[in-house]
Amino acid sequence: MDIIKLSPRQEKIIELVKEHAPITSEQLASKLNVTRAALRPDLAILTMTGILEAKPKVGYIYSQKPSYSLLYDYIMEIKVKDIMSKPVMVDENTTVYDAILYLFLNDVGTLFIENNGVLIGAVSRKDFIKIAMGSTDMHKIPVGVIMTRMPNIVCVQKDDPAYLAAQKIMEHEVDSLPVVEKSYDKSKNETFKIIGKVSKTNITRLFVKIGESK
Amino acid sequence: MDIIKLSPRQEKIIELVKEHAPITSEQLASKLNVTRAALRPDLAILTMTGILEAKPKVGYIYSQKPSYSLLYDYIMEIKVKDIMSKPVMVDENTTVYDAILYLFLNDVGTLFIENNGVLIGAVSRKDFIKIAMGSTDMHKIPVGVIMTRMPNIVCVQKDDPAYLAAQKIMEHEVDSLPVVEKSYDKSKNETFKIIGKVSKTNITRLFVKIGESK
Repeated sequence: MDIIKLSPRQEKIIELVKEHAPITSEQLASKLNVTRAALRPDLAILTMTGILEAKPKVGYIYSQKPSYSLLYDYIMEIKVKDIMSKPVMVDENTTVYDAILYLFLNDVGTLFIENNGVLIGAVSRKDFIKIAMGSTDMHKIPVGVIMTRMPNIVCVQKDDPAYLAAQKIMEHEVDSLPVVEKSYDKSKNETFKIIGKVSKTNITRLFVKIGESK
Repeated sequence: MDIIKLSPRQEKIIELVKEHAPITSEQLASKLNVTRAALRPDLAILTMTGILEAKPKVGYIYSQKPSYSLLYDYIMEIKVKDIMSKPVMVDENTTVYDAILYLFLNDVGTLFIENNGVLIGAVSRKDFIKIAMGSTDMHKIPVGVIMTRMPNIVCVQKDDPAYLAAQKIMEHEVDSLPVVEKSYDKSKNETFKIIGKVSKTNITRLFVKIGESK
């Protein structure tokens, strides 16, 4: 998708029209200290893009439909699958101690727990610090005991907008979301296979990438 | 700043010009199955915005200068001070155990350590997990012993672009940056006062906010 930027004069024209509508091109030209001819290309752009409307014998008015906005469409085109990274998974019987080692080895903030390819839980750095503060022996307790368990985990799917993932991260105050694919087990219960994850890191990386696209 | 979106036909024209440049308006009209007159407004917009260049007696070519892009300027206008949040600070003599309590009470990922209002260090969740895995008594060891010490902390200033903060977070693989103000102590050494922080959470929140601005 291409987006074009308005010139300072075009933005000034929009301001003037918003303030004085309806306003004729003569009036605009006089306020801007330029000739009508000089304004013609700008007015052409602004009407052709639907930002301004030209009412014959009345003048220019500001178009109510915000057809020219904006980043929203661009951002909504980016999907979870475009930004997700590989999830780090462990078995629920892994000890807390070993799970923390995995956390460091893979340099991630959240581990996902699976059972036969099905997502059953998640453990974050926060959970690990909490358990470490107690007197529990981390070599003995399995990660399955301290994990947040499905269905209490907020998930996204690969074709969701990345934007939705960012919203869910903020709304539910989590660092990371599993990207899941729905399927059904033998008893026809809904299950979720984990295929990726989206974290605040992925969103920050995306933000950096958007800024690079000049 | 206003940004306008190109119509699907305008985007199609750009594609055709990129592929077949130089191309005349007759050729474009025939490829798009429309009359030359119907194309005139689109070509006017595309040349006036500098996306296409009209070479007399040759045809339209794609302009090399990417004057019409884009999100970059918009994103660069957002400053660190627009998105930063309050830093949570502790004294370097605070025990690791108490520091972790602060971390949870304030629900943050990083604590900053100051001495007489001067930033001297930072401790992250990762640092806390590392120390918790050892056999150290967290009630005895002060946070000053395990912190990352200045000048090894990546900082930003309040008038830097938020974008720079995001870049630094990604480049240095940290969760959070202190926002600092430079000053000088009695011996004229450079010191930094901490006035805020920017984390991946702030960047994610900003991303959500940008998407809302439709």
